[in-house]
Amino acid sequence: MQTISDLNTPERILLGPGPSMVPSRVLQAMAHPLIGHLDPKFIELMKEVQELLRYVFQTKNQMTLPISGTGSAGMESTIANFIEPGDAILIGVKGYFGERLCDMADRYGAVVYRLDKPWGEVFYPEEIDAALRKQPVKVVALIHAETSTGALTPLEGMAGIVHKHGALLLIDCVTSLGGIPMKIDEWDIDIAYSATQKCLSCPPGLGPITVGPRAREALHRRKTKVANWYLDLTMIEHYWGDERTYHHTAPISMNFAIREALRLVQEEGLEARYLRHLANSELLWDGLQDLGLRLIVPLEYRLPSLTTVAVPEGVNEVEVRKRLLDEYNIEIAGGLGAFKCKVWRIGLMGYSSRRENVVLLISALSRLLR
Amino acid sequence: MQTISDLNTPERILLGPGPSMVPSRVLQAMAHPLIGHLDPKFIELMKEVQELLRYVFQTKNQMTLPISGTGSAGMESTIANFIEPGDAILIGVKGYFGERLCDMADRYGAVVYRLDKPWGEVFYPEEIDAALRKQPVKVVALIHAETSTGALTPLEGMAGIVHKHGALLLIDCVTSLGGIPMKIDEWDIDIAYSATQKCLSCPPGLGPITVGPRAREALHRRKTKVANWYLDLTMIEHYWGDERTYHHTAPISMNFAIREALRLVQEEGLEARYLRHLANSELLWDGLQDLGLRLIVPLEYRLPSLTTVAVPEGVNEVEVRKRLLDEYNIEIAGGLGAFKCKVWRIGLMGYSSRRENVVLLISALSRLLR
Repeated sequence: MQTISDLNTPERILLGPGPSMVPSRVLQAMAHPLIGHLDPKFIELMKEVQELLRYVFQTKNQMTLPISGTGSAGMESTIANFIEPGDAILIGVKGYFGERLCDMADRYGAVVYRLDKPWGEVFYPEEIDAALRKQPVKVVALIHAETSTGALTPLEGMAGIVHKHGALLLIDCVTSLGGIPMKIDEWDIDIAYSATQKCLSCPPGLGPITVGPRAREALHRRKTKVANWYLDLTMIEHYWGDERTYHHTAPISMNFAIREALRLVQEEGLEARYLRHLANSELLWDGLQDLGLRLIVPLEYRLPSLTTVAVPEGVNEVEVRKRLLDEYNIEIAGGLGAFKCKVWRIGLMGYSSRRENVVLLISALSRLLR
Repeated sequence: MQTISDLNTPERILLGPGPSMVPSRVLQAMAHPLIGHLDPKFIELMKEVQELLRYVFQTKNQMTLPISGTGSAGMESTIANFIEPGDAILIGVKGYFGERLCDMADRYGAVVYRLDKPWGEVFYPEEIDAALRKQPVKVVALIHAETSTGALTPLEGMAGIVHKHGALLLIDCVTSLGGIPMKIDEWDIDIAYSATQKCLSCPPGLGPITVGPRAREALHRRKTKVANWYLDLTMIEHYWGDERTYHHTAPISMNFAIREALRLVQEEGLEARYLRHLANSELLWDGLQDLGLRLIVPLEYRLPSLTTVAVPEGVNEVEVRKRLLDEYNIEIAGGLGAFKCKVWRIGLMGYSSRRENVVLLISALSRLLR
């Protein structure tokens, strides 16, 4: 076979839906020489990662840990553990990731009730209430920040409705955690999952989750084995719990990385971080509108970490993205599913959410769309 | 919450069952600034990783790729994709990881036929032939190098028997790939999985797999959806195939790392690498026997990447390991399952397989056991 050359990739400015840019401190921590996954020093580090995750999730949940796969594995872990064959789940679908939840739930034998709205819209508690009055379920699953549309579903008051109907509330906060308020305990959310490569600015490879007491009880009341060995929380809780019983080998370097990324979140402070994400997105929104571009999502529920903008009539959307990448080293993304070829998706997440990146992107776009 | 300090872990000499030590070039590649997972440059890199994996697996199988989880996820991917509810599987159990395969297969609805032998033994083709004559199955699963016992099951002639009975041969080569001959095409193995943190000396976080044409046909003939979304090869084949259709976000930094680790394998050459692993293990075996220690596995099928040694009567095995770690920064492991408290497990894998590590370990052990 041919010889494969030294790694030599361009320095990209990552303004897509993830991965976001990773601060040097995180890259350096990831490159730290390895220790064993059962080393007492690694076990201390696991505790620290959990403590830092509790901080960013704003929770006291003991079962707060990084699943050893990317965000989609985190997502699947919540379905696999809280759905048994025949369990009913209500899934709010108004974008790509709601669809994915339906696909996953179906594979675990759930009776899936979909609540559909057009892409780009959001759900309100009264809609969930109406749906649950018609059809009780075990789990209600909603996407907080829909990465495919840039819409943010408000969660205050949601759990009260869901709990009134005896269900568990499962929330996707992949594109919100660490960039937008996400208050697990205050909002009384039972189960949530996220990813590392969005607002946490850590490389992809871990799926942080948190599980509250109601959900944990439901897990322990299961009648069947979890239909997924790798993601089985009844075993993982003993690995990430006090016993540290071997289950699988944790991705050690990724845990070095997330620890450092979360330390950076803590150093900045959650409130300051939320404000930074919002301020830079407002700058972006103004800049895009000044270019005559139309934002897809109304301000009322527009997501500060990911913005969808309509591709203007007559513009080749792929060509613009290609030129941004080739001529400016800037990555933005196109649309998925119903939004394919219709929108660009611009992420300002974590370390990518910087004033200089916004101004550069607006300037580059203005030249390309001229 | 309290402030969490800078990452500061000791420099360990990793001589356990994995992770092995990671060369600086691999750590540096992993710390390379990120590019997007759909960036044309990353797509080139995916091709390179696949080509390098084909080299180390000694295969032309198109479906050769790293699963985005640790070795256990690679293991589960092979069960999830090649087992449908009601399918029969024959699993050879003579250690911990055979047990794990049974657990996984059961979760996917397999009819599991176990072939049990005492821990530390291996299977021969005639035993598999006899079992298949009694009970035909769809898949025969065997562990090549059993990490819990240090025994190496010889695979030459195995596939002929399995194929004669119309079954697929599935092989765990977690602790062999890159350190011991593993000839997928020559030995006609249908499905194999491995891990990165053993003889490849890459941090844990990916599960390399390879799937041959017979197995790929079986995958495409499935009547039911794969019961695991994250590991569904019918979708992953389009992400790692020519279409590069988005499935999940690949762990980008881990792919940088495995590319570099595999380049190092290629630079050394497989034959030289196998010889190095064997020579250093022979040095270890001699040294252990000179200390009066008993090796568990007979030379005939003793694994050159992982050695099990009996804990001498009256010695506190945990205390010895603790002192090796605290006083010498050397990690070795204890036993699992049937071997708990009875053996030490010493790994000489990848970059850990060096003469200086062997000599140091023997010397440290001799002081501690004096």
